[in-house]
Amino acid sequence: MKLNCDMGESFGAWTMGKDSEVMPCIDMASIACGFHASDPVTMQKTVALARENGVTIGAHPGYPDLMGFGRRKFDCTEEELYSWLGYQIGALKGICSQQKAIVDYVKPHGALYNTMMKDMSVLRTVMRAVKDAAPGCPLVVMAIPHRQPIEDLAEEIGIDLMFEAFSDRAYDDEGFLVDRRIEGAVHGSASAIFKQVQQIVEQGTVNTLSGKTISVKADTLCIHGDGPHASAVVQSLRQWREDGAD
Amino acid sequence: MKLNCDMGESFGAWTMGKDSEVMPCIDMASIACGFHASDPVTMQKTVALARENGVTIGAHPGYPDLMGFGRRKFDCTEEELYSWLGYQIGALKGICSQQKAIVDYVKPHGALYNTMMKDMSVLRTVMRAVKDAAPGCPLVVMAIPHRQPIEDLAEEIGIDLMFEAFSDRAYDDEGFLVDRRIEGAVHGSASAIFKQVQQIVEQGTVNTLSGKTISVKADTLCIHGDGPHASAVVQSLRQWREDGAD
Amino acid sequence: MKLNCDMGESFGAWTMGKDSEVMPCIDMASIACGFHASDPVTMQKTVALARENGVTIGAHPGYPDLMGFGRRKFDCTEEELYSWLGYQIGALKGICSQQKAIVDYVKPHGALYNTMMKDMSVLRTVMRAVKDAAPGCPLVVMAIPHRQPIEDLAEEIGIDLMFEAFSDRAYDDEGFLVDRRIEGAVHGSASAIFKQVQQIVEQGTVNTLSGKTISVKADTLCIHGDGPHASAVVQSLRQWREDGAD
Amino acid sequence: MKLNCDMGESFGAWTMGKDSEVMPCIDMASIACGFHASDPVTMQKTVALARENGVTIGAHPGYPDLMGFGRRKFDCTEEELYSWLGYQIGALKGICSQQKAIVDYVKPHGALYNTMMKDMSVLRTVMRAVKDAAPGCPLVVMAIPHRQPIEDLAEEIGIDLMFEAFSDRAYDDEGFLVDRRIEGAVHGSASAIFKQVQQIVEQGTVNTLSGKTISVKADTLCIHGDGPHASAVVQSLRQWREDGAD
Repeated sequence: MKLNCDMGESFGAWTMGKDSEVMPCIDMASIACGFHASDPVTMQKTVALARENGVTIGAHPGYPDLMGFGRRKFDCTEEELYSWLGYQIGALKGICSQQKAIVDYVKPHGALYNTMMKDMSVLRTVMRAVKDAAPGCPLVVMAIPHRQPIEDLAEEIGIDLMFEAFSDRAYDDEGFLVDRRIEGAVHGSASAIFKQVQQIVEQGTVNTLSGKTISVKADTLCIHGDGPHASAVVQSLRQWREDGAD
Repeated sequence: MKLNCDMGESFGAWTMGKDSEVMPCIDMASIACGFHASDPVTMQKTVALARENGVTIGAHPGYPDLMGFGRRKFDCTEEELYSWLGYQIGALKGICSQQKAIVDYVKPHGALYNTMMKDMSVLRTVMRAVKDAAPGCPLVVMAIPHRQPIEDLAEEIGIDLMFEAFSDRAYDDEGFLVDRRIEGAVHGSASAIFKQVQQIVEQGTVNTLSGKTISVKADTLCIHGDGPHASAVVQSLRQWREDGAD
Repeated sequence: MKLNCDMGESFGAWTMGKDSEVMPCIDMASIACGFHASDPVTMQKTVALARENGVTIGAHPGYPDLMGFGRRKFDCTEEELYSWLGYQIGALKGICSQQKAIVDYVKPHGALYNTMMKDMSVLRTVMRAVKDAAPGCPLVVMAIPHRQPIEDLAEEIGIDLMFEAFSDRAYDDEGFLVDRRIEGAVHGSASAIFKQVQQIVEQGTVNTLSGKTISVKADTLCIHGDGPHASAVVQSLRQWREDGAD
Repeated sequence: MKLNCDMGESFGAWTMGKDSEVMPCIDMASIACGFHASDPVTMQKTVALARENGVTIGAHPGYPDLMGFGRRKFDCTEEELYSWLGYQIGALKGICSQQKAIVDYVKPHGALYNTMMKDMSVLRTVMRAVKDAAPGCPLVVMAIPHRQPIEDLAEEIGIDLMFEAFSDRAYDDEGFLVDRRIEGAVHGSASAIFKQVQQIVEQGTVNTLSGKTISVKADTLCIHGDGPHASAVVQSLRQWREDGAD
């Protein structure tokens, strides 16, 4: 299972994440595109770092809300969302083109990601936008148990999907992420993260915040690069996977 | 000689320019990319309008200065400028990709345009950035009399050039534009514009603000879409060219 | 009844509204504070224009959403809203201080105005913020029929109110504004505007979009300065009021 | 000699500086106003932190350049600069008003600070703007050796001055700060900082990068809160001053 991590979320003089420590340990770098985080120079450096480490590059577009880091809901029309995605995906492609690198997938960020998972009309717009702006690139979506409608929609639109599980976030009973504002939403300890990862990888399930066990069949595992134990966790996961490969 | 015009310089609820009136009369639409003007929806609509009218699309990137409309000098590093251009050109390509349209050339905006014409190190960065972000696209530069150094640099970098003359702006004796803040910098009357265009087209020269006559050999003629007589002027120019084509 | 108008909603190179034509005809200028529109220079000029015309100055704060002109809902915490209002009101006060002018009232803009009228917890935050940032200034609210809860809250917080009616917007049956996206939401003709104003002034009522007649007891009447007939309408209203004063 | 420190330079989800560690050790907090750094919520929290620690609050306005952290030169008119300062100072006053706190002084940030020290026409605009937006507040300027022209200008405008020395930045021979891009511009070690502070306090001089000794008569000493040793240095300085008070 591939490890993906949000990357390039610094902005100007402000640093976020330990990109240079984490990048060597991951397979897929989801690079912010300047709307919720990042700026052209940060994107340039992050693409360079991904290339040096042989990491696949994905676009990580969000709502145009720098002050809110793309984490709050944003009221917008279909036309706005479609264009915001075309703009951001294209912008990252422009930077990649300058380094002869390629955008390989798209994973929406924060509130946009959560909204598209709960509102099929938003998901439809995202799929259309990604297909048209990044032909051939798969869209990353949450590996929720009831995924048939999502797969049907993707087939209708004509886009590939990658299903994603989260290593360090608590799940609710329907397989969505627990809101960050609720206690327990983010796993604080390395051991809790490992336990969740192990269960996802070995059993294809997750224990929800309420104690239920739900199915989570994933192609890729999201880890975060900005927590206190981020680089230790990522290195251990990488090691663990490599050991398992023997 | 092709007519080019800055297009898509509205922003959100604010309108600038009479794009729908001007677009049918021009050959090349230089579309703002969101840094000095425009936003993704405006870009989407402007690309659609260009396509409907069979107008060639160019990227019109500027300094990241919405409040100053990209008209003031901006202190930046080579790395910043290179990345800002990659970002903006890519963003317009992303929108174009959503409409199966193509970016055909690049023309920098405002203070960036003026700076690159006077500072060869800035021009070098612009050429490198455009070549890498939009392979095969020519860069539009001013048709100044002493153009050999620019042509040499373009050959060294490996990028094509288009030379541009201005219909409605006053020239100084070296063939640069007179600063907008100086009286007489922008031709106010349609007749002054026509006179300058006629002289450029028929004689390949321009009369400078000081009264000198200088050589201006141009591939394309820039007209502005936001002046009081904009659409009348553009329509007349178009008509005049068509008549001449007989 | 005092005439109030949104003023200073230009931004950088983009112009909105006919401020210099409208200002001489109104009593209260609600000046945008840079979050949904305006910039410091525009604010400076608008304050000067208000002073020259002896017009009372109000702060017109909005959501931090320039691209959406503060017209879309914005998910935010109480702390954010409270601070956004303090910042914007203070910013206008700073500009006013430079001209020895005074901020006399506060009227929230767009989506924030609509949200506070429908959500008492938002209204409470707005009242607290305005009271603390602009002690002694009244808050402008809609003159809805069922205003007792609003008056009770204002008394509890300790803030004065001004009730406002709208000249050019359609009403729903509860006395709120019809959403701009619905047909008929904005009165297009000068005669429709006059008719609504006359009824508000003479009978204290309005006919809703559905045909009901509702009570609208207002202290001030909002007119908009950016419509096609704006300055004609405003001048006529002014004239009409002055004639009535005989 | 009073210790002043730039505070509240975080932005949205991005943290900068160790404000809560440093605040208890300083006398004057120069709080960013949202143009080069900070946002209304950060300002609100920083004002609260200053009040809890009995620290004097100053406005720390900068150029409108979030992406460049206000560190690059910004081409602007007198009217723009005057209005930008009125806006920012007012905005902080608005937040302070919400907490019944007061803005006590103004210290421009970064490139604006450096520019005003070298260009008397810019300094004049800054003085006028500060005097009009924050009547009675002193302006912090660099304690350069040749300060008579600055004092004369301040007297003409009618504004008080505070002279400032820097603890952790290298000086050039005219008493200005060495550009951050030059090696040695920022003292990296705690011992170098201490040595410079001791010399400023005890002898009223500084050793320049070239080895000269120049006069630096200061009212306040600037320390930075974001360096690796920031809080250790600040605590030691505080301790040292208190010991000296015996």
